[in-house]
Amino acid sequence: MKQILINTQQHCQFINIDRQVQQVVREANVNRGMCQLFVPHTTAAITINENADPDVVRDVIKVLDKLVPWGADYTHTEGNSAAHVKASLLGFSETVFIEEGRLDLGTWQSLYFCEFDGPRTRKLMINVLATG
Amino acid sequence: MKQILINTQQHCQFINIDRQVQQVVREANVNRGMCQLFVPHTTAAITINENADPDVVRDVIKVLDKLVPWGADYTHTEGNSAAHVKASLLGFSETVFIEEGRLDLGTWQSLYFCEFDGPRTRKLMINVLATG
Amino acid sequence: MKQILINTQQHCQFINIDRQVQQVVREANVNRGMCQLFVPHTTAAITINENADPDVVRDVIKVLDKLVPWGADYTHTEGNSAAHVKASLLGFSETVFIEEGRLDLGTWQSLYFCEFDGPRTRKLMINVLATG
Repeated sequence: MKQILINTQQHCQFINIDRQVQQVVREANVNRGMCQLFVPHTTAAITINENADPDVVRDVIKVLDKLVPWGADYTHTEGNSAAHVKASLLGFSETVFIEEGRLDLGTWQSLYFCEFDGPRTRKLMINVLATG
Repeated sequence: MKQILINTQQHCQFINIDRQVQQVVREANVNRGMCQLFVPHTTAAITINENADPDVVRDVIKVLDKLVPWGADYTHTEGNSAAHVKASLLGFSETVFIEEGRLDLGTWQSLYFCEFDGPRTRKLMINVLATG
Repeated sequence: MKQILINTQQHCQFINIDRQVQQVVREANVNRGMCQLFVPHTTAAITINENADPDVVRDVIKVLDKLVPWGADYTHTEGNSAAHVKASLLGFSETVFIEEGRLDLGTWQSLYFCEFDGPRTRKLMINVLATG
């Protein structure tokens, strides 16, 4: 099990983590298997989406902000309930297959770490399993 | 593979299940591995979120109710389509790493069973895998 | 690791894939284990929901269309940002337990491939793991 650190710079931000995760997969020296990713936070998440046009994840961020506005009438006094809701909507884990020692993502897919209450230093946990 | 029963008391309710899941992990006697959780229902789900302030999950429930209102114009005649939609939004499975025989959740994370059409007696399926 | 093709016929459509996935599980000849499913696209997803009344998934599609309208003010010039957002909301992977050589789904559960920008020919990746 490996842990990497991710420094987010904005309040809401999707960060492409393909390179870092691929590095961990390479070091695990697993030809065929599964890469299990886990976000150990409650105001950040992980998702997959298109990497070719950065406007795609900008649109995802924009829609989430509209559906779950930061300043709505929440009970939690810390004031960041919107971030908690968005994190539960996108989810805290992702599983990607490994083929020939590499993440077997689709042509347009990238892994994104989703910051919803940054900027912060965040952790991502990565487990690489060989499946023979 | 273990199955636990969860009695929900309210129509919409998030129930902290850390203790019960940790108990299954302990009995599996696995030092390092993965705990796979699965909800075998279509109007309940599983998520992770903050446990320190119970207002956080109350806010999550409130936002979901606002986004997917119970009494909107649905086609499904049973009348509980809102619960089916919310379940698909939060998802039916969760994967948590196990380290030193314990669920390796983040500091503020707890596992929540999400009831969207209770009260009912629900099942949760738990699989503990050793990963060496 | 197996890959199956799914031909979608509509712009937004949930397709029951139980039969095809069960077929892959059967061929894997695994008595007890886990079936890991992965959608290698960015405008399609996978979910679980009720199969008894087809109106249920119709309502899920309808609510998602209302929450994330196709023609809203998006930045991504390809015009299909709504599909990208919905895919991230429902997610790209699903894990189902296998017992006695069969998918151990709940009584009312079926697996659905979720098309959000069809019709297209889509892929679904399936990994069957024995867990002893």
